[in-house]
Amino acid sequence: MFTGSSSYKKLLSLKKKLKPSLKKWFDDDKERAASLSVATDRMIYDFSRQLINDGVLNALMELAEDSKLKDKIKSMFSGKKINVTENRAVLHTALRNLSDRPVIVDGKDVMPDVNAVLAKIKKFSDEVSSGVRRGATGKEFKNILAIGIGGSYLGPEYLAEACKPYAKPGMNLIFVANVDGTDFVRKTRGIYADETLVIVISKTFTTAETMKNAETAKQWVIKNVGSSPEVIRKHFIAVSTAKEKVEAFGIDPDNMFGFWDWVGGRFSATSAVGAAPLSLYIGFDNFHKILEGANWLDEHFLNQPLESNIPVIAGLIDIWNINFMGYNTRAILPYSQAWHRYPAHCQQVEMESNGKSVDMDGKPVKFDTGEVVFGEPGTNGQHSFYQLLHQGTQVIPCDFIGFKKPQYALTDNARLTTDNSLSHHEELMTNFFAQPDALAFGKADKYLPKNFPGDRPSNVFLLNEQGPFEAGVLLALVEHRTAVKGFIWNINSFDQFGVELGKVLGVDMRRRIALYKKDPSDPKVFEGLNSSTAVLLKKFLKD
Amino acid sequence: MFTGSSSYKKLLSLKKKLKPSLKKWFDDDKERAASLSVATDRMIYDFSRQLINDGVLNALMELAEDSKLKDKIKSMFSGKKINVTENRAVLHTALRNLSDRPVIVDGKDVMPDVNAVLAKIKKFSDEVSSGVRRGATGKEFKNILAIGIGGSYLGPEYLAEACKPYAKPGMNLIFVANVDGTDFVRKTRGIYADETLVIVISKTFTTAETMKNAETAKQWVIKNVGSSPEVIRKHFIAVSTAKEKVEAFGIDPDNMFGFWDWVGGRFSATSAVGAAPLSLYIGFDNFHKILEGANWLDEHFLNQPLESNIPVIAGLIDIWNINFMGYNTRAILPYSQAWHRYPAHCQQVEMESNGKSVDMDGKPVKFDTGEVVFGEPGTNGQHSFYQLLHQGTQVIPCDFIGFKKPQYALTDNARLTTDNSLSHHEELMTNFFAQPDALAFGKADKYLPKNFPGDRPSNVFLLNEQGPFEAGVLLALVEHRTAVKGFIWNINSFDQFGVELGKVLGVDMRRRIALYKKDPSDPKVFEGLNSSTAVLLKKFLKD
Repeated sequence: MFTGSSSYKKLLSLKKKLKPSLKKWFDDDKERAASLSVATDRMIYDFSRQLINDGVLNALMELAEDSKLKDKIKSMFSGKKINVTENRAVLHTALRNLSDRPVIVDGKDVMPDVNAVLAKIKKFSDEVSSGVRRGATGKEFKNILAIGIGGSYLGPEYLAEACKPYAKPGMNLIFVANVDGTDFVRKTRGIYADETLVIVISKTFTTAETMKNAETAKQWVIKNVGSSPEVIRKHFIAVSTAKEKVEAFGIDPDNMFGFWDWVGGRFSATSAVGAAPLSLYIGFDNFHKILEGANWLDEHFLNQPLESNIPVIAGLIDIWNINFMGYNTRAILPYSQAWHRYPAHCQQVEMESNGKSVDMDGKPVKFDTGEVVFGEPGTNGQHSFYQLLHQGTQVIPCDFIGFKKPQYALTDNARLTTDNSLSHHEELMTNFFAQPDALAFGKADKYLPKNFPGDRPSNVFLLNEQGPFEAGVLLALVEHRTAVKGFIWNINSFDQFGVELGKVLGVDMRRRIALYKKDPSDPKVFEGLNSSTAVLLKKFLKD
Repeated sequence: MFTGSSSYKKLLSLKKKLKPSLKKWFDDDKERAASLSVATDRMIYDFSRQLINDGVLNALMELAEDSKLKDKIKSMFSGKKINVTENRAVLHTALRNLSDRPVIVDGKDVMPDVNAVLAKIKKFSDEVSSGVRRGATGKEFKNILAIGIGGSYLGPEYLAEACKPYAKPGMNLIFVANVDGTDFVRKTRGIYADETLVIVISKTFTTAETMKNAETAKQWVIKNVGSSPEVIRKHFIAVSTAKEKVEAFGIDPDNMFGFWDWVGGRFSATSAVGAAPLSLYIGFDNFHKILEGANWLDEHFLNQPLESNIPVIAGLIDIWNINFMGYNTRAILPYSQAWHRYPAHCQQVEMESNGKSVDMDGKPVKFDTGEVVFGEPGTNGQHSFYQLLHQGTQVIPCDFIGFKKPQYALTDNARLTTDNSLSHHEELMTNFFAQPDALAFGKADKYLPKNFPGDRPSNVFLLNEQGPFEAGVLLALVEHRTAVKGFIWNINSFDQFGVELGKVLGVDMRRRIALYKKDPSDPKVFEGLNSSTAVLLKKFLKD
């Protein structure tokens, strides 16, 4: 379907004829930036440094038409069960459907339930803020300890880091994800259990890492606050759909905040998964601004024509880079320390969604799908891996993300710098503007170690402020850009069967370790293992 | 040279004939793990899950011989000026040459200088510990604020995070790297300047980001402690070689800790760059254990025959994966929260060293060099990007790094888990053992969304404890593995001209912004810019 379309063939032939020269293209066409960018009041998206011309862009738009992209986007928003392998709708957009447009799943509008959970979270977080809800010893909560992993961690953590200046005074939000006990110990060192509210985030309440950490948190609270059921009920809440398990843990089911099977883990940051910890941390109103930002991009994605649709264009260009240029890795480079965990969140959304080899008809794909995504904040990355971006043998398309305004102005110090007039933010932005040009235009030098070939493609995203609204915009951007690629490749971006085998083998390993602990001489401990795992496990258990 | 060797051609032909089947290979050869692994008392390196057989391994060893690898390693250790483009020796190994073997550069043994700096750092950090050195108000130092970026940041940060349990009670080590003011503001919020010792780390004392943050730190100290020269002298020290600039900043030149032109930034963690902040943080004796660990791997690298030499084999296998299998991206997966910044450090060492396109003779290479390196700690990554590792269309070789012992046992809580007997560390390790097998052996399923193809290669590194010694071992491992690749590709892994152009364009951008701030109507502000940068810069400056 993807490779069979006429637009695909056209793109192949355009690729063959293409002689990339960004320098020449910019010199010859003074309107290049204007024609290869989308300006909105919230964000400029400039893709003029991609190795494309109008012909390629038009053919990509045809590819979108051939793939029925518009219809697929509408199907997603309207609640069709497009996650076919799991027979589920894909409705993270309903979580911030602020116009309350009805969204029907199985004959029922989901919006009343969505709004009810949000209202419940608002009430709960207001009660914590105002001191109506307190710890068992009567102390106000100062720490939110959010226990979750993967989709129940990376999205909320990205948002919390981005929105840190909006935190309620004196309130900390701490994430524990890794089953490695070091994570729990380090994160709880120096905080008091009687001032801590623990949120256990797990859809099924069976995620191995999360339940292990939840049990450890329970012991920590019991040891430091008390062991009565009342203590647990005051200090623990849950984001889950598994009411019985939540109750069995000792959590008041009234303090369970639910979500639905149409919210995938990596798309769940605007559900209770993010709403509960973030409302407690930055207040419900600020969390609502995240929803507004995400909703703003949702509406743009749903309503803008393809030719001026930011996630659509970004996704199509990814496909150009992956399937036609052969560039299979992308760097995400936010020029903002506050956004430092955005690359890790994008890594999850992109790689878990599109790291697939089977199409919607269950057949193996014959082309490359999801790219590897990685990144660190600028300017840190410049002093680390940018060498390879500029002069390596691989070409890595880059996303530069910048903001007009800093989170902290620090203007007082400007006069002290050696070149005496630039603020921290201005210094940062000189790099933000310089790097895409260095990649695109290079610099010829006969001494090859100092030669820069140029024609290394990048996107530039320039937003206004570094606040919750923008955090929501960029959250939705990676979600939709990822979906665009899946729609065009005709793969299911919304399941994740690839994580199952590791879990199964992990359970087997758990059984073996448990056996060993009962009886180190039990031959079943190592039975049937391959020679490598047998040696390694022995080394681990016996030495 | 690389592609012209007979071993290269042999490898090409072996690749053509190769029919990878790890399952079959393990079934057929019960000794596979034993023959494709290196066991030492400090670490097991198991590469039996690589897509190689004895023939490939032998040919890789021939490639090493053809490339004169042994000689090149010896040249590096002995102080030859192998960084030819900068006419410098490459001697990070001398920084932990604990046997004081003479190392001659320009006719002079460098070891007395190395030892003198270490002795000076020990004395200084002991004086801080014992309270002989204090802040200007008489308070003891509780915070070390290390300002540096790139090589002056990522290595020390990795080591500090890995060695956190060894920190002196009550002592914090805080890194500020990014020129984004958010980094400085967040890291200094909640700490007191009069209890803070600032280390400014910059070889030339001109690194833009570092000097900007240093000036801001100076203002912060002046505002909160006082403006007399004595205050600056008590609260600031430097790791640098630029004595005049250090003095001009107001730092006592006696409190400048030097290093040498034969220490490259990304290889500098065992120089004063790491020694100063880490000795203050974990004590000189614990820092010395890092040196011991690095030295242990140095000696192994220098003295072990190629066939049992861990960094040599790891580097050769990287070359097999990059140049013969076509796998250009590698994931580094430490199953340890304490090691969470190790992937970022490796990313720098690998990508800055080998992201090159020119060989030692100044000619363009005709093959792929440095790979993209990325990673997150296990088990976090499993719930994020492992989907692509297991089922994506790209094959990503993986490095699994695990430890027999946890940093914190947390055994009290074991009995509480639902499957009732495993500690946090045992849970973690079930995943560490399960994932390489899932990748290697897969699981056939006729329902393709649940099919795991297998034959996805990985390395397994199993170490003993999670302490400073092991931190040093793994620090040296990435350094040497990187060098092995550069030696074989015949590229210079020790320069980084690829970062220059961005700096030059950044300076130009700085000039423009400064002009604009003097006179917004100055036509020179936007003169000569391409249409994209002109629009973006205008948007940034004018809106």
